[in-house]
Formats: sequence, structure tokens, C-alpha cells
Amino acid sequence: MIKDNYSIIFGQKSTIACILSGKSINKIYLQRNKKNIHVEKIIQLSHQFHIPIQKVPLVKLNKLTNKNHQGVIAQISPINFSSLSTITQKCYEEGKDPLFIILDKITDVRNFGAIVRTALATAVDAIIIPQHHASAINEDAMKTSSGALAYVSICREKNLVKTLEYLAHSGIRIIACQEESKSSHNIYENNLTGPLAIIMGSEGHGISYHNLKKAQKDFFIPIFGPIDSLNVSVATAVILYEVIRQRKFGI
Amino acid sequence: MIKDNYSIIFGQKSTIACILSGKSINKIYLQRNKKNIHVEKIIQLSHQFHIPIQKVPLVKLNKLTNKNHQGVIAQISPINFSSLSTITQKCYEEGKDPLFIILDKITDVRNFGAIVRTALATAVDAIIIPQHHASAINEDAMKTSSGALAYVSICREKNLVKTLEYLAHSGIRIIACQEESKSSHNIYENNLTGPLAIIMGSEGHGISYHNLKKAQKDFFIPIFGPIDSLNVSVATAVILYEVIRQRKFGI
Repeated sequence: MIKDNYSIIFGQKSTIACILSGKSINKIYLQRNKKNIHVEKIIQLSHQFHIPIQKVPLVKLNKLTNKNHQGVIAQISPINFSSLSTITQKCYEEGKDPLFIILDKITDVRNFGAIVRTALATAVDAIIIPQHHASAINEDAMKTSSGALAYVSICREKNLVKTLEYLAHSGIRIIACQEESKSSHNIYENNLTGPLAIIMGSEGHGISYHNLKKAQKDFFIPIFGPIDSLNVSVATAVILYEVIRQRKFGI
Repeated sequence: MIKDNYSIIFGQKSTIACILSGKSINKIYLQRNKKNIHVEKIIQLSHQFHIPIQKVPLVKLNKLTNKNHQGVIAQISPINFSSLSTITQKCYEEGKDPLFIILDKITDVRNFGAIVRTALATAVDAIIIPQHHASAINEDAMKTSSGALAYVSICREKNLVKTLEYLAHSGIRIIACQEESKSSHNIYENNLTGPLAIIMGSEGHGISYHNLKKAQKDFFIPIFGPIDSLNVSVATAVILYEVIRQRKFGI
């Protein structure tokens, strides 16, 4: 869905220049069946810089701008994405246990914004999102996060399974936050200290099979009423605060 | 603001019959300057049953329905409000420490719905809301709560200060959840067990002075980043889960 509250740039050469300048781009809309040397360059650069491309009919591009877009429109991101390896290295250099949140198919922008706000409050080192099936990172996300999006590092990863392998090799324990029916480890009865990456799934889809296989342990937040689960931004806050509590005050 | 997603009834005698039947009514819209014996009866009953009345111009009522409303439209609530004294008594009879949440001027329906969902998950005995300056209790609230609104007891109180006095006399400790800058008691370093009523304030207004004066202690949720506060539904979840953790696993 094309939203109004994005900054956009358009045109083939402008898009190429924008990518090469290092500007953060959320997504590129490309006119279906458009082919020429500049479009090929855009496709090649978008692979290189992990920028999602969506092929759309001309009419969709015309809705976004009435200017001469030449079949290419890029959504500019209000933030700069961060490098996961740089952040991981920095944590270890500073003698700090890394704390990461991985959002698996969490596309609701209000939930994303609320999670970013809590992540800043709990000193999370980075939020990791996939290249596809992630929330839009736009002015709505900025507003819902109460501006926290400008401070929290967001890492956009092409392949979450490979990212999880990288984290495991870097000595970070990967855990999955699951519904009570799918797990047997209560967050209040288990150790959540040390370097940690927590996978949170979407309410509709849960955590995808391939990512779940990479988790070393799964945990649940206890539920005491006739309801299956918490809202995902609430669940993220509850587990993050339990991590912080254990780190500060012991298990 | 008049919303579409309410069930309504209209007409003077129907409204009187509806109130007397015990049906839950969110609010009554009354045509400004309308006076007769039925309207007087409606005003008297609305005081008796703690139903907010809003006096509006005729044109507003006509926007709500094109039927013959006779100057009176009542919004039907999708839930039945509960009696705080009945719930308090029931808790003590069952040997359970009551756990209440008091929402002071929290009017955002999404925050309210999210709090209701968490309240069900943490076995909160009732959510107490004021008669005025509360969230609409409508289909949006039901949806955001994932249906939890049908299960959690909601007590609508005319005068929160008197309600807080009643709770204190009933042996319930009243605490206020404040920002870190306004309190010196960390929730992770203090006892939150025993009968408890937690006042949560709105993000815009905080907790009002008269309610705050009735709290026996204030607590803060620690914040570790450059942000003042959490989203109110997130903050409610964090403090409720800490109460539950202390009750189940000790301080």
C-alpha cells in the first residue's frame, strides 16, 4: 500500500544517485516491464544495498506523483539503518552483553512504534527486522514511538536465518518468545541474563518455522485468564523488563 | 464525538424503559433546552444510575439518527458495568488479594483496549474508570482488547476520590504509577504484594492531584534510555506482571 506520509524521490538517475549517496531507502516502486540500462542499474544496486523492490503498474506510480517519475519512485526512510556486526562488536568492546529484539513478520506500524519506544526505555542495542514482511518505517512509526525511532538502532536483514546463525556464532543466545501452549519455560523461572537475542512473532503468524529452529530455547509469558496471548508490543515489554530485572536484581 | 459504531436507542419513553431494565448505557445525548416530565425523569434516573448526560444541539441528534428521537438518544454499552463493592467482597470471601487498576483520564480507546487485554491475562479483578474523561466503551475497544472486554469487570465510578477512600477503608493499598522523575520507589525494589489498587495516569495529564493525594505510595518503572516514559498500556503491563511475579515467585 502506498502511503502519503513518506518522503519520496523519483526518476531513474535521481534514484541511482540517492542509493549511491548512502541515503536510507525503505522501498523502490518500479514500473512493471520497464527495461533499460538505468533500470538494470537500479535493480543491481537494490540487491547490493538490501533495498526491497516492488514491481507495480504505471497507474500506481501516477497516483504517487504527477511529476515525470520515469517508472521509478523510491520511498525515503526517516532513519538510517544500522549494521548488526558493528553494533555487536561495539557491545563486546564496551564489555556490555548485547540485547537484541528480532521482529518476525510484525507489520503493524503501531505495534512496531510501541516496541521501538519500549526498546529505547530498556536500552535494547538493536531491533532486527527482515527486508520483507516488516512494518513500514515512516512518520506513523516515528509518531507511535514518541520519537524513539530516531534513537534506537534498526538493522534490516536480507535473510533472518543467516542473521540468527551469525548471532549464534557471535556468542549470543537466541530465544523465542512463544505462547504458553507452545513452550514449557516460564520467563520468571529461567535465566535471561547474558548476551541475548529475543525473537518475537506476529499475532497472526507466530514465529516462522525456519527462524524458530535457530532458537536455542523458547519461553512463555504466563497468562492467568481465558485469553491465549498478549498484544505483541505488550509481550515484548514484559519480556524485556524481565531481562532488565534479572540483569539488575538477579534471578 | 458521536461515533457510528455504537448501538443506540432513541425516544424519551424507550430511554426510560432501557435505563430501568438495567441495560448498560455509555452516555445519553439530550437536546439542549428540552424540558418535559419525561426528560426530567431521564435526568433523575441518569444521576441515580451514574450515566453521563451530554446536552447537545438538535442538529447533532439528527446526525445520529433520522428517526423520531424526541430529543433523546442513548448509547448502549456492549458490556455491563460491575459493582466495585460486590467484587471487593467476593475477593475477600474467596481468600484472594484484590488487584485493581484505576484509569485516570485515559481516553484513548486503543490504549484502553490493550490494558483490558493485559488485565485479563494477569487476572486483574476489576478496572475502575471515572464516569467522565474515560475511553469510549464500544466495538473499537472490544476489538483492540481481542474480546477481553467481555470478560474483565469494568467499574464506572462517579467520584474517583470517594472510590479511593472506599478502597482504602476496605484494606486495599492504593499506589500510583508515576514517571521516574516524580517518584523514588522502583517497582523492582519494593513490595507489591497484598491487596492492591494501582492508579495509572494518562500520558498527557498524568494522575490528577486529588487522586494522587489518596495514594499511599508512588512507584516508578525504571527507564534506561533518553525517553521520559512508556506508553500507558505498556507501563500497565509491566507493573501488573511485576505484581504477579512477586505474588507467585516472591520479591
